[in-house]
Amino acid sequence: MPLIVREATLGDIPQIHQYIKDLAKFEKALEEAVLTEEDLKESFFTNSPQVYCLVSELDNVVTGIAIWHLNYSTWLGKHGIYLEDLYVDPKYRGQGHGKALLVRLAKICLDRGYPRLQWWVLDWNKSAIDFYHSIGAHAMDEWTVFRVSGNELRKLANTEN
Amino acid sequence: MPLIVREATLGDIPQIHQYIKDLAKFEKALEEAVLTEEDLKESFFTNSPQVYCLVSELDNVVTGIAIWHLNYSTWLGKHGIYLEDLYVDPKYRGQGHGKALLVRLAKICLDRGYPRLQWWVLDWNKSAIDFYHSIGAHAMDEWTVFRVSGNELRKLANTEN
Repeated sequence: MPLIVREATLGDIPQIHQYIKDLAKFEKALEEAVLTEEDLKESFFTNSPQVYCLVSELDNVVTGIAIWHLNYSTWLGKHGIYLEDLYVDPKYRGQGHGKALLVRLAKICLDRGYPRLQWWVLDWNKSAIDFYHSIGAHAMDEWTVFRVSGNELRKLANTEN
Repeated sequence: MPLIVREATLGDIPQIHQYIKDLAKFEKALEEAVLTEEDLKESFFTNSPQVYCLVSELDNVVTGIAIWHLNYSTWLGKHGIYLEDLYVDPKYRGQGHGKALLVRLAKICLDRGYPRLQWWVLDWNKSAIDFYHSIGAHAMDEWTVFRVSGNELRKLANTEN
């Protein structure tokens, strides 16, 4: 059977969970990937999900995942797609599975009138960066991501104005 | 009356629209901010909005805006908050309005069990970066934002697998 891209189903959860762990390990942060299969079920299969998962599949084997949600451009006044995780099983790399997932996301953008597809990349992940350049993406080097979390988030929330 | 933070209403749209334009001008991208007031109405006041707006208000004057949406951490299996735009009218800076907006977002995170509040900053916006450090945020320098849009997005969508 040919490579296909489809929406994830409940039965895919164990494989998706494993791929997320595999990606976290590659990103040198396995100990930070504390999610459970139950977390994923609640996230993707609630009544009004706000995060979605596509899978690539070849011969009934799930070979890759793309986890995404909407973002928003205030300059354009429109939603876009933010790709949180893209992962292809190393056994299936270089065969167009990752690209097929990105193509599907680009198609969703065009169908819905979303002007942008965005994601983050680790600076040292050169093979990924080369791949992203090859499909027409560009780095937005001017911008830096900021985060507040943990104790700092609690402290901020408890600040009196 | 004291400074308050509240959800935006329809009547705030013209001021929100103006502040978005003001911020785009500061970010040297005014010509890219093509959104209309109608876009904002549709985005914030649809039946199931996926983007939200808080405003700061002093003496019945809207002094600042925070436009946000959900994001998702696959490592944690939980949603978080992504702050798309934070803007305070220059006339009201240094008086805690921006911080009040961030505190409210941090409270929403804690109330809902979201572990992270994130946003992007332009590298050259030193005063903003100093402010964000002062409230406990840190820069995630390892990550770069990638984007595909315009002709490249159409080309990608029309790629045959």
